[in-house]
Amino acid sequence: MPVISRKGSQMPESPIRKLVPFAENAKKNGIHVYHLNIGQPDIKTPQVALDAVKNNSIETLSYARSEGSEEYRIKLSKYYQNNNINVTEKDIIVTTGGSEALLFAMGSITDPGDEIIIPEPFYANYNGFSTASGVKVVPVISTIENNFALPKIEEFEKLITAKTKAILICNPGNPTGYLYTKEEIEKLKAIVLKHDLFLIADEVYREFAYDGLQHTSVMQIEGLEKNAIVIDSVSKRYSMCGARIGCIVSKNEEFINTALKFAQARLSPPTYALIASEAALDTPQSYFDEVIEEYVDRRNTLISELEKIDGVRVAKPKGAFYCVAELPVNDTDKFAQWILEKFNYKNQTVMVAPASGFYSTNGEGKNQVRIAYVLNKKDLITAVEILKEALKVYPN
Amino acid sequence: MPVISRKGSQMPESPIRKLVPFAENAKKNGIHVYHLNIGQPDIKTPQVALDAVKNNSIETLSYARSEGSEEYRIKLSKYYQNNNINVTEKDIIVTTGGSEALLFAMGSITDPGDEIIIPEPFYANYNGFSTASGVKVVPVISTIENNFALPKIEEFEKLITAKTKAILICNPGNPTGYLYTKEEIEKLKAIVLKHDLFLIADEVYREFAYDGLQHTSVMQIEGLEKNAIVIDSVSKRYSMCGARIGCIVSKNEEFINTALKFAQARLSPPTYALIASEAALDTPQSYFDEVIEEYVDRRNTLISELEKIDGVRVAKPKGAFYCVAELPVNDTDKFAQWILEKFNYKNQTVMVAPASGFYSTNGEGKNQVRIAYVLNKKDLITAVEILKEALKVYPN
Repeated sequence: MPVISRKGSQMPESPIRKLVPFAENAKKNGIHVYHLNIGQPDIKTPQVALDAVKNNSIETLSYARSEGSEEYRIKLSKYYQNNNINVTEKDIIVTTGGSEALLFAMGSITDPGDEIIIPEPFYANYNGFSTASGVKVVPVISTIENNFALPKIEEFEKLITAKTKAILICNPGNPTGYLYTKEEIEKLKAIVLKHDLFLIADEVYREFAYDGLQHTSVMQIEGLEKNAIVIDSVSKRYSMCGARIGCIVSKNEEFINTALKFAQARLSPPTYALIASEAALDTPQSYFDEVIEEYVDRRNTLISELEKIDGVRVAKPKGAFYCVAELPVNDTDKFAQWILEKFNYKNQTVMVAPASGFYSTNGEGKNQVRIAYVLNKKDLITAVEILKEALKVYPN
Repeated sequence: MPVISRKGSQMPESPIRKLVPFAENAKKNGIHVYHLNIGQPDIKTPQVALDAVKNNSIETLSYARSEGSEEYRIKLSKYYQNNNINVTEKDIIVTTGGSEALLFAMGSITDPGDEIIIPEPFYANYNGFSTASGVKVVPVISTIENNFALPKIEEFEKLITAKTKAILICNPGNPTGYLYTKEEIEKLKAIVLKHDLFLIADEVYREFAYDGLQHTSVMQIEGLEKNAIVIDSVSKRYSMCGARIGCIVSKNEEFINTALKFAQARLSPPTYALIASEAALDTPQSYFDEVIEEYVDRRNTLISELEKIDGVRVAKPKGAFYCVAELPVNDTDKFAQWILEKFNYKNQTVMVAPASGFYSTNGEGKNQVRIAYVLNKKDLITAVEILKEALKVYPN
């Protein structure tokens, strides 16, 4: 019989995959499940984007340009300029989601066996993309005590080897909600320049910065032009996760030319989604104002409700729409299954993402969960109440 | 300065990429360019697919399931059953185009340094996906004298090493238009079973089989269940190249489970395109009858016109919508540039794809071009006339 590759066997499963059957079973038994486990917002997609697709006049659904149309990239570059990111259409390659942007970036700058340093906890799929690319993730731990701020730069320094090709950050962070300060980005600048590394920043949550704080892009830092690579996506910005449109942005021409070859091999990003994404750039500011207000309200509600529970510790997120919470349990993988399988409160339960899947270091995050505040306030309050009742009776 | 990876440097450019500026320049100079170089059909997309997208009622454009919705996969499995391919929805993973299907397949069955044997000439992007996956393409040559039929099985046998993981065919073939017979597939069955290899068949042109010939899928061959992997796509079948929806089909459960992990890492295929693809399955048979009739007519026209030119030899394609032609020139890369840059006939010229990009063996195919018959009959006749006039004056 033919055999699966080492790479294939090592591909990680989604951290919540094994919980899905338990959630499905609970639903079959008439139990309502509140989903705090996924980054799929309930927010409506901007009408201007939805309308553009409904009103399209396509007769032959043709390939788009591999790098995205010039029109879209020009419009996109204006979006970046409005965000004080000084790029032109030549610095942008449109991709099939942020996922593909990351794959192209890894392919362009790493060979099998190379290493990328990532502060953990980090977006679980970084593990998948790294495995698929043959890259070794080297984690540097950030802690809930510090709200998951950037680890000390000496900790990065210790991990750099001849095989290190990049440092990868997510800003604001999934799952941490942490928003890096300009000073932190400057520290990263110093180390990547010193060691000739790329600094890849996943900035798909750029708009989701709260409490009057300003998001700092790696593209805004002078002197970082050859090193900075931004991973971006329309998924969260416009609540269009299903579009699968993202992009790579960099002022490093050699890097862009290399990533373009990966883009050409897969022909083009999806045409309908490009129509939606181009139109979405005309979304009025009022849309974002409302969305941000809504998320801030949800976050405040979630955090204050969680803090009322004995033994729960929560990192205070400044961006994105996740928080990491420490629960008074030994193993959140077991707890997350138990609450779906064995527990209900008034015929309701919750699904959370155990945090172990967001760590690369074995054994880390065992008492943490990621909670996505993608439900309305009322549902969030109920969901936390269920969590509280569950913790009272959980046989730890 | 940070450096590009070996892999990135080795990623091949599209074989026609360097011709694009010459075509653009010709157009700027008022010269009409007939595009015989691309696999983008001019055929209209089925109305039922276009309408489904126009009439969608999406309010939040959400992620689809990583493997595609159960509804779509069930409907798709019925399409396969109607094509005498006995699969269920469990044997299918929906992908972002045939491109991603091939990447997932390579990732699941190869590690860096592994080898895949491919009859050449082959679809140029197989080179790109192989490089991206760290896989070495081992070509086995097929010849224009034999219409690019399957090379002798001994030729494959000679190339098999401990690192060989699969044989990859495209059936019907791009760029050759060759349709493998059942006997040829049976020969491949024997060798893959003997050596425990996967047999990957890119069957995206399944419907495009002419002259009353029947397409044979690797999924129809008994005893090949653990070895056969089909790469498929809606791009050519429904003239929806811009959808970017394809799939992987296999009865090998371990392989499907592995490919699913790659699918989960990238979250989901594009939602709008899934709507179009699911609706396209209701395309009436009359659509295909008309399309096939049109392509047969175009093929016959193209071949008979080409054969009138002195020194031109053409393989007779039985499927897809390409043919490989030998021209009386030394180097079609130079000729393809010259005809765009230095030649015009009544203010018209043509763009063809030099065949060297479809070979992995250096120096092969230098006097061949791939011609896609994706233009209407009248335009095809004119395009071949231009080619004929150009060959008369080309300073070889």
